[in-house]
Amino acid sequence: MYPLQVGLRSVKLTRSYECRGMSFDAMPLYDTSGPFGDPAFAHDPQCGLEPVRETWGFDRETIESADATPSMTGRKPLKAKPGSAVTQMHYARKGIVTPEMEYAAIRENQNLGEWIERCGGTPVTPEMVREEIARGRAIIPANINHPELEPMVIGRKFRVKINSNIGNSALGSSIEEEIEKAIWSCRWGADTVMDLSTGKNIHQTREWILRNSPVPIGTVPLYQALEKVGGVAEELNWEVYRDTLVEQAEQGVDYFTIHSGILAATLPYAMRRCTGIVSRGGSIMAKWCKAHQQENFLYTRFDEICEILRTYDVAVSLGDALRPGSIIDANDTAQFSELKTLGELTLKAWDRDVQVMIEGPGHVPLNLVRENMDKQLEYCHEAPFYTLGPLVTDIAAGYDHINSAIGGTLIATFGCSMLCYVTPKEHLGLPDRQDVREGVIAHRIAAHAADIAKGNPTAWLRDELMSRARYAFAWEDQFALSLDPVKTREVHAQNIAATGDNSATARYCTMCGPDFCSMKRSQESEEE
Amino acid sequence: MYPLQVGLRSVKLTRSYECRGMSFDAMPLYDTSGPFGDPAFAHDPQCGLEPVRETWGFDRETIESADATPSMTGRKPLKAKPGSAVTQMHYARKGIVTPEMEYAAIRENQNLGEWIERCGGTPVTPEMVREEIARGRAIIPANINHPELEPMVIGRKFRVKINSNIGNSALGSSIEEEIEKAIWSCRWGADTVMDLSTGKNIHQTREWILRNSPVPIGTVPLYQALEKVGGVAEELNWEVYRDTLVEQAEQGVDYFTIHSGILAATLPYAMRRCTGIVSRGGSIMAKWCKAHQQENFLYTRFDEICEILRTYDVAVSLGDALRPGSIIDANDTAQFSELKTLGELTLKAWDRDVQVMIEGPGHVPLNLVRENMDKQLEYCHEAPFYTLGPLVTDIAAGYDHINSAIGGTLIATFGCSMLCYVTPKEHLGLPDRQDVREGVIAHRIAAHAADIAKGNPTAWLRDELMSRARYAFAWEDQFALSLDPVKTREVHAQNIAATGDNSATARYCTMCGPDFCSMKRSQESEEE
Repeated sequence: MYPLQVGLRSVKLTRSYECRGMSFDAMPLYDTSGPFGDPAFAHDPQCGLEPVRETWGFDRETIESADATPSMTGRKPLKAKPGSAVTQMHYARKGIVTPEMEYAAIRENQNLGEWIERCGGTPVTPEMVREEIARGRAIIPANINHPELEPMVIGRKFRVKINSNIGNSALGSSIEEEIEKAIWSCRWGADTVMDLSTGKNIHQTREWILRNSPVPIGTVPLYQALEKVGGVAEELNWEVYRDTLVEQAEQGVDYFTIHSGILAATLPYAMRRCTGIVSRGGSIMAKWCKAHQQENFLYTRFDEICEILRTYDVAVSLGDALRPGSIIDANDTAQFSELKTLGELTLKAWDRDVQVMIEGPGHVPLNLVRENMDKQLEYCHEAPFYTLGPLVTDIAAGYDHINSAIGGTLIATFGCSMLCYVTPKEHLGLPDRQDVREGVIAHRIAAHAADIAKGNPTAWLRDELMSRARYAFAWEDQFALSLDPVKTREVHAQNIAATGDNSATARYCTMCGPDFCSMKRSQESEEE
Repeated sequence: MYPLQVGLRSVKLTRSYECRGMSFDAMPLYDTSGPFGDPAFAHDPQCGLEPVRETWGFDRETIESADATPSMTGRKPLKAKPGSAVTQMHYARKGIVTPEMEYAAIRENQNLGEWIERCGGTPVTPEMVREEIARGRAIIPANINHPELEPMVIGRKFRVKINSNIGNSALGSSIEEEIEKAIWSCRWGADTVMDLSTGKNIHQTREWILRNSPVPIGTVPLYQALEKVGGVAEELNWEVYRDTLVEQAEQGVDYFTIHSGILAATLPYAMRRCTGIVSRGGSIMAKWCKAHQQENFLYTRFDEICEILRTYDVAVSLGDALRPGSIIDANDTAQFSELKTLGELTLKAWDRDVQVMIEGPGHVPLNLVRENMDKQLEYCHEAPFYTLGPLVTDIAAGYDHINSAIGGTLIATFGCSMLCYVTPKEHLGLPDRQDVREGVIAHRIAAHAADIAKGNPTAWLRDELMSRARYAFAWEDQFALSLDPVKTREVHAQNIAATGDNSATARYCTMCGPDFCSMKRSQESEEE
């Protein structure tokens, strides 16, 4: 037995609303903010978060301490005993429901089991999570060295998730800023965070982020490996890369993007494109392959990579090195050849009980989005799909978060499990705090709209309560139920303040004014 | 013969780009900004724009001066002689290609006839515009009293259009601000502008807007009629409404939203909804019907309304009074009964050669969007569809422009002809300048993404040039080809400035920094 306490946010409403014969005076929300969502929480980044997963216990028969440097908290890294796997997939296939599966299942239901059944749905059970993981259709990224994590499940039978990227480049931003951005991302609804740092202090930045992160952290280990060889792609080698994997796995990174699918044979296709290779990792490996006239070592060494991943339960996110960077390159031979290779690698990883997700495009015109999802399911045996956008046009610089949310909503509705956010700065520069907030919210809209389209009852309830609050002019409830309560409250207050009315009780907004409010008039008609 | 000069914007590029064997050192763009797009244009709002259509001549056999007050420019309003119609549909059905049709056709092609053919497409011809209008599948909103107009065509075989709403409410904003917003909207890409003013000086605000607008202006005459009866819906009557139609038609309004489809018989369905009636016009007419226990006079008097419309060539935009205001109300009996009625009214209007478009929702979950388009085409005999969103969730307040762009892209891809913009202030207050810009750009992204998905060669060329410029690090060309050159230039310059590099020549952006730029590395691989 373990003391499982699952984080949820309960939004108290100012009145009670009737929905399908049930009464709601609060809306329980899926919450990604961890302890930071609690106003009473006193955060000390130097100490990190409580290692909640430690209290659930680890599989002591299989897990031992690694002979490695302790983390900043003084804890020694853990690893599987030689020859063993400690992945969620490993346990799932053995029929074991882990605390992580149970946690993720409880989270998905948002304490709304009765409502879900009332809507004709089935609440998520830990057993169902186990089955999906065993089948490879879902993953729980949860490195045994990231005890601060609140586990979550990525798969198309569950709530659509979003990822936010942070990370300094050589050109700016400090560790403090990056930690702050990670916390900030989760506050607005990021389900995972990728640390894509390429500048100085990569190891230390990551350590601070991990120790302070309630959500899974992903990385692209190639970036650090490249820094270790002075930034020269040709100087990369397996040993440096392998050591980097181990270093990051010991720190607790929950998933690695690995560009194993870009092969020497498919490079010529990419060279004929309008925008060539737009994946950073892909362009590095392409350069390495050309320089050495050898096959990509991330492909040839994939078995060895999997051996490392299963030792710590790091999930692999198979990178789409050849994703299209312009709509004219979408769905081309380069892209789909790589996707097929990712499918082969998926089976190899599964052979070793390594959890897998597949990364996807990129720039794709709306009419070609469906084919991406269909082919991914077919080639990659239903492993979860994790896409960047897709962006449905190339000309939206400055507003690419909107562009990405459009394609993202569509592909998530078709079955994509997680959307990687894009900020307004995409194609132009490094996002700041405000860009992160806008990027996260835009993709929360996309993910939520897809949950709505897929008929997720918990998503529907939030919309129904919002609309009932709207029709009742219950402004405080509208703010609380919106994706950005801070902004909605601010905007409404500013507008109403100008009229001298009270923003909490006004039965109109300034868009139409009191005399032209349709809902007010509609209610008068109902009352007659 | 008439001297037809069609407005286009030519974006000069810093170098030449090869696309499908053709060379481009400039990109001709569809331009909605009229004379305001010319930096040399000296604007005097008191004089209004040049009445360009006057130089093309009017049909003097059919058109005469009305016995009415001259406009602020001193021109007497025009009208058809008794018993005649002067609508584009009237001429189209007689086989006459008007200057307006020719203008609209030339505009659609963006001077890219050769490119369109190279892509296997067919350039738009004036005859094709005529055919579509004759068939009712397209409209050119062009009141004979709006000579300042640069005509454009709305229909699903043409470029997807967007509308922006302006207008003061009782709570704020001045005439000057509203004119400025109209010009500002067109600058960012609004194809038409609806003046939804409900406050003071409605007539004068509209006059100023019309005289200074190169794009079609739409209104909801009911708002002014309501003001005339002191804001009391029950006091409305046919005579006041009729006089308002004539007043606005004489001023030059190009299309009217008229809520003729909401019937006494369907009201009970609306009263059972989560959010009742969210159309301002709809809620007014519902109240009137209930108070008088009579059928909606906009329905019973529809023939008389059409008589007025055909006299000036005001197109009718049949309002969706019962559009859903929450996703739970989407695609319900109330909505689709009204849509059927709009289909009947379409045939009535067409009998009198009145041009028609149909307004659509509203709040609709993504999976129910397609049904809206399919039913609209079926019930309304392929008259152009003009939708507000649809918004694909109810909880995106503060970011509803993104929400609307998501649903809008999808429905436009399915065949919707024009998207009504939604700003970040939707559901919260009256938009300001910055909201208008964000709303317009978000819907330009949606409309353009739909054009891309529909395979429009002129849309594809812009994306291809943008991507080629991106791969060539031709920053100035990227800015010029983006939807918001001002923002992209600003953002990039700020980011690069911090590094000390020159923003025009830097071969990277600060997102990845110089050492991790994938495109730079990809090019190096190509060169090897």
